[in-house]
Amino acid sequence: MLSIPDLIKKKRDGGALSDEEIKAFIQRVTDKTIQDCQTGAMLMAIWQKGMTDKEIVTLTKEMMSSGEVMSWPKEWAGLVVDKHSTGGVGDKVSLVLAPALAACGYKVPMISGRGLAHTGGTLDKLESIPGFNIQQSTDQIKNILDSVGCCIVGQTETLVPADRVLYGMRDVTSTVNSLPLIAGSIISKKGAESLSALVLDVKFGRAALYKDLDSARELAQLLVKVGNSLGMRTGAALSSMDGTIGRCVGNSLEVIECLETLKGKGPDDLMELVTTLGGLLLKMTGSVSDLSEGKKKISDAVIGGAALSKFQAMMEKQGVDSEAARALCSTDTDYYSILRKSKHQIKLETPADGEVVDVDGMMLAEVLHKLGAGRSKSGESVNHSVGAKLLVSLGQKVQKGASWLELHYEDPAPTADQISRLQSALTLGTHTQQNTPTHTVVKELLLPQ
Amino acid sequence: MLSIPDLIKKKRDGGALSDEEIKAFIQRVTDKTIQDCQTGAMLMAIWQKGMTDKEIVTLTKEMMSSGEVMSWPKEWAGLVVDKHSTGGVGDKVSLVLAPALAACGYKVPMISGRGLAHTGGTLDKLESIPGFNIQQSTDQIKNILDSVGCCIVGQTETLVPADRVLYGMRDVTSTVNSLPLIAGSIISKKGAESLSALVLDVKFGRAALYKDLDSARELAQLLVKVGNSLGMRTGAALSSMDGTIGRCVGNSLEVIECLETLKGKGPDDLMELVTTLGGLLLKMTGSVSDLSEGKKKISDAVIGGAALSKFQAMMEKQGVDSEAARALCSTDTDYYSILRKSKHQIKLETPADGEVVDVDGMMLAEVLHKLGAGRSKSGESVNHSVGAKLLVSLGQKVQKGASWLELHYEDPAPTADQISRLQSALTLGTHTQQNTPTHTVVKELLLPQ
Repeated sequence: MLSIPDLIKKKRDGGALSDEEIKAFIQRVTDKTIQDCQTGAMLMAIWQKGMTDKEIVTLTKEMMSSGEVMSWPKEWAGLVVDKHSTGGVGDKVSLVLAPALAACGYKVPMISGRGLAHTGGTLDKLESIPGFNIQQSTDQIKNILDSVGCCIVGQTETLVPADRVLYGMRDVTSTVNSLPLIAGSIISKKGAESLSALVLDVKFGRAALYKDLDSARELAQLLVKVGNSLGMRTGAALSSMDGTIGRCVGNSLEVIECLETLKGKGPDDLMELVTTLGGLLLKMTGSVSDLSEGKKKISDAVIGGAALSKFQAMMEKQGVDSEAARALCSTDTDYYSILRKSKHQIKLETPADGEVVDVDGMMLAEVLHKLGAGRSKSGESVNHSVGAKLLVSLGQKVQKGASWLELHYEDPAPTADQISRLQSALTLGTHTQQNTPTHTVVKELLLPQ
Repeated sequence: MLSIPDLIKKKRDGGALSDEEIKAFIQRVTDKTIQDCQTGAMLMAIWQKGMTDKEIVTLTKEMMSSGEVMSWPKEWAGLVVDKHSTGGVGDKVSLVLAPALAACGYKVPMISGRGLAHTGGTLDKLESIPGFNIQQSTDQIKNILDSVGCCIVGQTETLVPADRVLYGMRDVTSTVNSLPLIAGSIISKKGAESLSALVLDVKFGRAALYKDLDSARELAQLLVKVGNSLGMRTGAALSSMDGTIGRCVGNSLEVIECLETLKGKGPDDLMELVTTLGGLLLKMTGSVSDLSEGKKKISDAVIGGAALSKFQAMMEKQGVDSEAARALCSTDTDYYSILRKSKHQIKLETPADGEVVDVDGMMLAEVLHKLGAGRSKSGESVNHSVGAKLLVSLGQKVQKGASWLELHYEDPAPTADQISRLQSALTLGTHTQQNTPTHTVVKELLLPQ
């Protein structure tokens, strides 16, 4: 049998691990016969020395095969698709895209995560809807896909157990930002969904993991390569992430913004992301011949209300009372008859006349995190009602004293310092000859070879 | 409170940890509030990025202070000394040196280890003497030092608990050969003995951890520096380790060789090491003005029988029946009336005429290990009776068919392949114009500044 100290030594010294060696490592991680200190040392050795593309593909395959790999009815061939985003402030794309794809006839077994930093993840957002149950078994997922076409659920116990172990250790061992480990974690989970096609939203900028386009492109190229090596048609969009996606940040507020979007009143940047990522999936699966046709189909599904119906059906299938689901999806509904509203709201005012030239999404997110919108440790609860809503747009001219941000909070209340940090997120231009602000967030596309 | 992931990140990126950060790491290792995966990752980060001398001194001090630090009666000031060796095949120096130093009036609280590879460690050797108890509390150690002057014991529960954790993990995480971790482990344990002076035997060569003089010198310089920083007068000898020390390898056989040495019939190389290391301690503590005077004092204590009396007294104090101790220390005793002899012995014969120009100590040790003289895992038992005795000396002319090695074995018996490997350890010269073989093993000395 291969010895774990020997494998660690090989990687420690910069060697490339063989398929057999990577398989042994992942097996021992999965069956817990490796010591935790050994896993920590191997993660650090991989962080330090990296992995070849061949090693990364093998690592990802072995992680994927460490648990159940889903299987789908034959008639769904070519239709099972999903999206993964590297995450950003106010990233609510999944809640709109999944039902839009379902409305286009696709099957979307979206297995998502909780947020660890800043504000909640996709699952936290959905759990701000009373009754929404993100825990679904593989059979239940199949059942929901059969009748609705999309579901958004948490990771099951049976899928990719090796990733659960490694993911839990990477944070505490400071080995998160390692390309091989990122690729292995993301793609193994999508591989276990047995997808026909996968689209990745790799973000860069102030409010993203990667600060510049080049490093985001490096990750995107790797993810596309590994995804395709696992037999999924995989493409990626590189999108900028300096401010927020849409105008709302915080779990309940983002759900409301998604419902508004599904009712045809979504912000341009969110719609651009949804249609581009959805359009790419339609193109990769061959149901349209060019991207613009794909974007239009997705846009039609959102604007025309078909996606909203799918979202309503998904909520019901995932445990939301049908009356509540219907109410949330009605025109001119009072969202707060269903969702909880924070006890307090205040509006921040602009400190001067000017034009809105920048809003620092990361600054907003960090303060909201402290106010309870996000968690610092796995297992902590979040306050779904905490959040903020931008009341101005980039490029908008404002006068001193205009309301620009609506802050929703409970306990703790924001400190003077936190209010001042929120204010510093806003940058006003001193003259009106600015570059025309643009809502274009997608900067580049990477398609499978 | 300092965050462990932040400390790991700093070292991961090659930064130097502050005193406070190292203290936090060692405290959390000691009180077990750090996760094992974090310790593994930190060990690997230290392996990869190294540590500054300042960091190493702090690491060593904090490890030392993680548990009890011994204190001695005032009247022993300047007299408490010890030796540490990086280990070699047939290294039995401690068993002769400790009683020799005691005979010179020193106090030697020698805390030793068990062997993990090849053949047993010092404790295993002593345990081949029936009744010898290496487990002694701090109070018992003081008592033995008071009456005898030396003891050789295992690590106690209370000394350097941080090292026990880290040492246990380094082997399985392939982070053993890291200078900062080696120095921290060795010197912290000696520091906790509150020594006045420490001498190090750093070995290099085929049968040592370091293969060449330069890398051994690098380690020795670091150990000397760290030891002196902790307030111990610390010096080192660099000694070559290609063959065996003395002629016997294996636990019982080595005890017999030590007893013979203490009776004035020791091999030259062992005597050279004992007198040099002991002489250095005498010089560093100021009881002699030059090394040769120190060597002579030690030699006199060994040759004159004073050290043998101390060894006998130490055995009795550490649990050996006084009749047995007396018998082992008598002239012309039958050692095997007390020590267990292996069930089988065979003699290997030289394959040709020639002069003995080399004996590969590592080759012998590896085969003896397989035959049960050493252990592969912590906690395994060893067979004290297994070993080998060289019947020839370097430079000796032999005829084909002469006995050159006496192998002591039980179960398993040596395979044909193992016998052939033992034979390959012997190199015969084809002519008699060899360099005169020398017994000089000490190549360089490092004294405190």
